[in-house]
Amino acid sequence: MIEIYDLETWCSQRILLDKQQIGLVPTMGALHEGHASLIERSVKENQVTVVSVFVNPTQFDEIEDLNQYPETFQADRRVASQLGVDFLLLPKAEDMYPDDYNHRIIETALSLELEGVHRKGHFEGVLTVVMKLFNLVRPRYAYFGEKDFQQLELVRGIVGAFFLGVEIVGCPTIREEDGLAVSSRNLRLTPSQRSIAGIFPKLLKSSSCDQEIVSKLEARGFHVDYIKKIRGRRYGAVHLGSVRLIDNVPMTEVER
Amino acid sequence: MIEIYDLETWCSQRILLDKQQIGLVPTMGALHEGHASLIERSVKENQVTVVSVFVNPTQFDEIEDLNQYPETFQADRRVASQLGVDFLLLPKAEDMYPDDYNHRIIETALSLELEGVHRKGHFEGVLTVVMKLFNLVRPRYAYFGEKDFQQLELVRGIVGAFFLGVEIVGCPTIREEDGLAVSSRNLRLTPSQRSIAGIFPKLLKSSSCDQEIVSKLEARGFHVDYIKKIRGRRYGAVHLGSVRLIDNVPMTEVER
Repeated sequence: MIEIYDLETWCSQRILLDKQQIGLVPTMGALHEGHASLIERSVKENQVTVVSVFVNPTQFDEIEDLNQYPETFQADRRVASQLGVDFLLLPKAEDMYPDDYNHRIIETALSLELEGVHRKGHFEGVLTVVMKLFNLVRPRYAYFGEKDFQQLELVRGIVGAFFLGVEIVGCPTIREEDGLAVSSRNLRLTPSQRSIAGIFPKLLKSSSCDQEIVSKLEARGFHVDYIKKIRGRRYGAVHLGSVRLIDNVPMTEVER
Repeated sequence: MIEIYDLETWCSQRILLDKQQIGLVPTMGALHEGHASLIERSVKENQVTVVSVFVNPTQFDEIEDLNQYPETFQADRRVASQLGVDFLLLPKAEDMYPDDYNHRIIETALSLELEGVHRKGHFEGVLTVVMKLFNLVRPRYAYFGEKDFQQLELVRGIVGAFFLGVEIVGCPTIREEDGLAVSSRNLRLTPSQRSIAGIFPKLLKSSSCDQEIVSKLEARGFHVDYIKKIRGRRYGAVHLGSVRLIDNVPMTEVER
């Protein structure tokens, strides 16, 4: 596995890969089983797999959230190497934003719903950095988890609108035994918070209506940003203490 | 010269060009000597030259201006063919905006000055369509006129910020005998308006200060949007009746 710390080096490597089929897994590090499932799929389906680790500052609407984001570089490097990653791309913020974030991708419909209501500017940051990574890596396939389903749909949106010529592969959410979607944020839950966190995905799949789910979650101490059935899925975002969790399930998996 | 009317056909042609060096000249048609100078340069410098003709609706802030934009397809095709263009790309608006313009490129600094003050949303439309064209054509070089100098700089901006891997070639403004910058809008000037229009570039190059130039133009019946010296150039935008003209000159050409 080749580790790349600056974009100049990457661009010269990239030229050598011109005829190879590249799979890209964009991450913010703190790699867990969810990421592993994306990486495994990319390694299987492509000649070359690039994993980017970049804690993208522009997609954090709260500076606290950014500061608390775990940095687990040694572990990430080990995981990536074990899974057969070819290139680990670790750019610096100033390399990714030579323009000081003066240029942005915006979306004016879907990005204003759900997460967009609660995290101002979040998707602008996500779409902007994804566009940059696509142009730098020029993958044939890029892998995203269904846990961030709205993000997945928005990424598909820019691919269509800007003719990016990359295929977006959505991969199923990986869950803990109690159903909690795997996320780097789970590590910040206290033991007692962790013990009730599984109620969240369980209720998303329950036959209760959105408002009933909100009430049940609040009764258990969750602070609820939204629970919303829309376009064939039920989406939710909740806080347990200072930790924010999001999840979604297809309505086909919801009990009737 | 191959004329292409739909993007599917274009994309299948594009694949065949994969090893060739492509030059792109994006236009809105109504080709004049200014465009010809860009096209000639591209033909000289590249194996394949693509000229796009697309009257981009999203960059018109006034519907009247869009409706009055000349359509001169037969003449454009003749000019392009005579100059040695290989592909004339004539996409439809619904092909370029499958997303109904829900996805946009914005710039948050330079785009708010000069033209950006007077034409709300103009540069958003320009940058968005340029990004789409770059991704569709994937040129090595793209040619833009210095007459729209702010646009040229903004296009360079997205190339840097999004790692587009295309080189932007700025080409000198082509002028009529009296100094008026060649533009499709000049055709809409009445003979008496046309007879005084040359005063505008002449004053831009004069030793007068910006405010003096405004006064002199207004005294001759121009309505002035702005005259402004900034970053080594003097920029101006004026109206003669219903026709809006823009121009700019480097300060090195300004009399002292």
